[in-house]
Amino acid sequence: MASAALRARVRRPALLNKLCKPEDLLHHFPNGAYIGWSGFTGVGYPKLLPSALADHVEANNLQGKQKYTLFVGASSGAETENRWAALDMIERRAPHQVGKEISKGINEGRIKFFDKHLSMFPTDLLYGFYTKDRPKNRLDVAVIEASAITEEGGIIPGASVGASPEIIQMADKIIVEVNTLMPSLEGLHDITTTELPPRTKPYQITSPKDRIGTAHIPMDPDRVVGIVESRLPDVTNASAPEDAISSAIAENLIDFLKHKVAHNNNHPPLQSGIGNIANAVISGLAKSGSFKNLTVWTEVLQDSFLDLLDTDNLTFATATSVRFSPHGFKRFYARWGEYRDRLILRPQTVSNHPEMIRRLGVVGMNTPVEVDIYAHANSTNVSGSRMLNGVGGSADFLRNAKVSIMHSPSARPTRVDATGVSCIVPMCSHVDQTEHDLDVVVTEQVCIPPFAISCVC
Amino acid sequence: MASAALRARVRRPALLNKLCKPEDLLHHFPNGAYIGWSGFTGVGYPKLLPSALADHVEANNLQGKQKYTLFVGASSGAETENRWAALDMIERRAPHQVGKEISKGINEGRIKFFDKHLSMFPTDLLYGFYTKDRPKNRLDVAVIEASAITEEGGIIPGASVGASPEIIQMADKIIVEVNTLMPSLEGLHDITTTELPPRTKPYQITSPKDRIGTAHIPMDPDRVVGIVESRLPDVTNASAPEDAISSAIAENLIDFLKHKVAHNNNHPPLQSGIGNIANAVISGLAKSGSFKNLTVWTEVLQDSFLDLLDTDNLTFATATSVRFSPHGFKRFYARWGEYRDRLILRPQTVSNHPEMIRRLGVVGMNTPVEVDIYAHANSTNVSGSRMLNGVGGSADFLRNAKVSIMHSPSARPTRVDATGVSCIVPMCSHVDQTEHDLDVVVTEQVCIPPFAISCVC
Repeated sequence: MASAALRARVRRPALLNKLCKPEDLLHHFPNGAYIGWSGFTGVGYPKLLPSALADHVEANNLQGKQKYTLFVGASSGAETENRWAALDMIERRAPHQVGKEISKGINEGRIKFFDKHLSMFPTDLLYGFYTKDRPKNRLDVAVIEASAITEEGGIIPGASVGASPEIIQMADKIIVEVNTLMPSLEGLHDITTTELPPRTKPYQITSPKDRIGTAHIPMDPDRVVGIVESRLPDVTNASAPEDAISSAIAENLIDFLKHKVAHNNNHPPLQSGIGNIANAVISGLAKSGSFKNLTVWTEVLQDSFLDLLDTDNLTFATATSVRFSPHGFKRFYARWGEYRDRLILRPQTVSNHPEMIRRLGVVGMNTPVEVDIYAHANSTNVSGSRMLNGVGGSADFLRNAKVSIMHSPSARPTRVDATGVSCIVPMCSHVDQTEHDLDVVVTEQVCIPPFAISCVC
Repeated sequence: MASAALRARVRRPALLNKLCKPEDLLHHFPNGAYIGWSGFTGVGYPKLLPSALADHVEANNLQGKQKYTLFVGASSGAETENRWAALDMIERRAPHQVGKEISKGINEGRIKFFDKHLSMFPTDLLYGFYTKDRPKNRLDVAVIEASAITEEGGIIPGASVGASPEIIQMADKIIVEVNTLMPSLEGLHDITTTELPPRTKPYQITSPKDRIGTAHIPMDPDRVVGIVESRLPDVTNASAPEDAISSAIAENLIDFLKHKVAHNNNHPPLQSGIGNIANAVISGLAKSGSFKNLTVWTEVLQDSFLDLLDTDNLTFATATSVRFSPHGFKRFYARWGEYRDRLILRPQTVSNHPEMIRRLGVVGMNTPVEVDIYAHANSTNVSGSRMLNGVGGSADFLRNAKVSIMHSPSARPTRVDATGVSCIVPMCSHVDQTEHDLDVVVTEQVCIPPFAISCVC
């Protein structure tokens, strides 16, 4: 029996006939299946099915015997993909991941990882590059978190869009986890699906606030093999706290933006990465008061963006996910009717597309592993070979931004040394961003625009 | 007195009042001036003014005393920029160059070179990044080759468009070299000018044959300080001849395209670089007969494209320049009325734009200095530090192509060793193309698609 909450969310009644428990759906996941999940930066991912499969593997000692190829727009929740990695359930993973167990599996060579720009992954998936050895060149099953389902069977996503449109397009079977714990986020998303060449069209977007798509992801209801009700939250951490270093970096960076990038009280749209430096920068902008009418075109919004929205100096923000802390989600859901008019979540194909980043003249800001004196940057491999999370969207933004900024502490402490290892090195041990792509480096010591420009805008 | 040929080409009579000799215009080029030339891949560049200035410097022993900052869309003619370099007339150069003397000056540290993606240079020029230290943040003078001037004062370019639209936009003074040796190429070009954010619009192009612009480059006639008549040809070399190695590479590559990329007799648009391997590949496609209805979206067309056009298997080609051999130009001009309907030259901002390369699903093919086993490629610096020509458009295409191919001999001979130096190395000495961007490597030995895909399309 469907709960009242679920019946209110699933507006296509026939789909309620497919309501079941996660345990009833395990037979759709034979060993070797190719699986796509919703999710991006650890939010909007399915919570029940992955855990039910992990429980099943654990209970039946199937570790290493039931393995999957797993695609998610970017990272998923730690309690899902990382647990799968710990249970040796992942044969292959693309295009990005976060979690100690999964990066351990990759670095030990047990998990095959393909590290691709987030803007390109969904299109490459549709091209069939990732499924070329499968009989039908498709995914077997998609597991998608929704906050509602429309009359037509369209998915209203949760806190991220990511690669869900393309994963749904590519999947033979679809399982939907309708999350009734969070409000229906209808109206937050602007969904375009990807058409392959020669049918690809321009994105008719000329401002972060432009809408060109639908509020839902189109889905063929006949491919749905199960609907489950979820009341589990996105499991996120508290925001990494600002410290003296990240505050000093933010101060240097904001000074640079104020004097070299802002012009006549106009500022190009901002992209900001993830982590405590990014949070400090956005908090600093909120506190500074020198920036009016800011807009944001980025891939993920963190808590500090809520502060900036609350100042009214941020007129509009768009991303592919909202990755808030538990406290941030509370703030967001409590006032989301207000935030909704100043936020859009788009597919990662759009949020990270060079077409959009160049057209809008975005200012890109990201944190590297290390930067060298030639202006190469390492975004992925510590000491040249230990994979962290993948290139993510860093190169989408740094290659195409009007001004490409790397912000980094000048050194990172290690277990045995409080100063630790320099992040500004003679030559990077691995190059993800080339000298042709990086304009400005900011540390807590100094803001160095040694490369192309020092920036007139 | 204007010649009859010139009067026929300059359709805005008032501009004929500005007719003069190159020697009369030298005062527009004081020491330290910022200069922009038309030109791309050694065609469509101004011939008279650069030589007159070089003659002046030589005659008056001004070597090293009369130096300029020089911007050209890509490379210019050897008899112009390379001679300037030999006379120590170049202080600064961007974004690409070809010539022994100029690369010598760069590698000795005398010439400041900034090496930027060709798709981005014109926009960065308009942003003012390259002129930020100039009083008006503009170029002092542009020297542009035209094959005609319209009634409104619009420039009908010669054999390349390159960055001329943006250089004209940025220049305080404009000198036009009207070349009456070649035919008027009116109708060959599709010109869009670049508007900066937030006014940048989508390129409304969904096929290589789409036209969205004008036949001429808009120009303010009041900024013209001189018109000169030129009857000098683009100085190009004979095509590098095919040899056993380039033929074997072409054979492997064409086999790959036939079996892995072509689909139902449809083939994605091709991009092909410059040099004898690229020529062999395109010649091979012309001879093969297995490919029908081909289209080309590239940055430069070489002689072999004329063979392919003559087979009728190439339905349409678009680029930013036609860099033919002297013999190729004869063929082209003799039949250009026929070729014109199947060719468009566009600004390099458009031909190399990620927006277009992704939308059309272009197959990119380029030659590296070296490729490593991690799929990094070096496109610019021999042994990590000797600059050749610059990154050019290689990364524009390799990052954004549907299928990114590097074709390379497995080794290149040196003066003392017929086998020479391996081009497939354990680790590249300089990284211009990252592991995230390269799909397939083809040598005369083998076609290796070891990375993302082996390609279903």
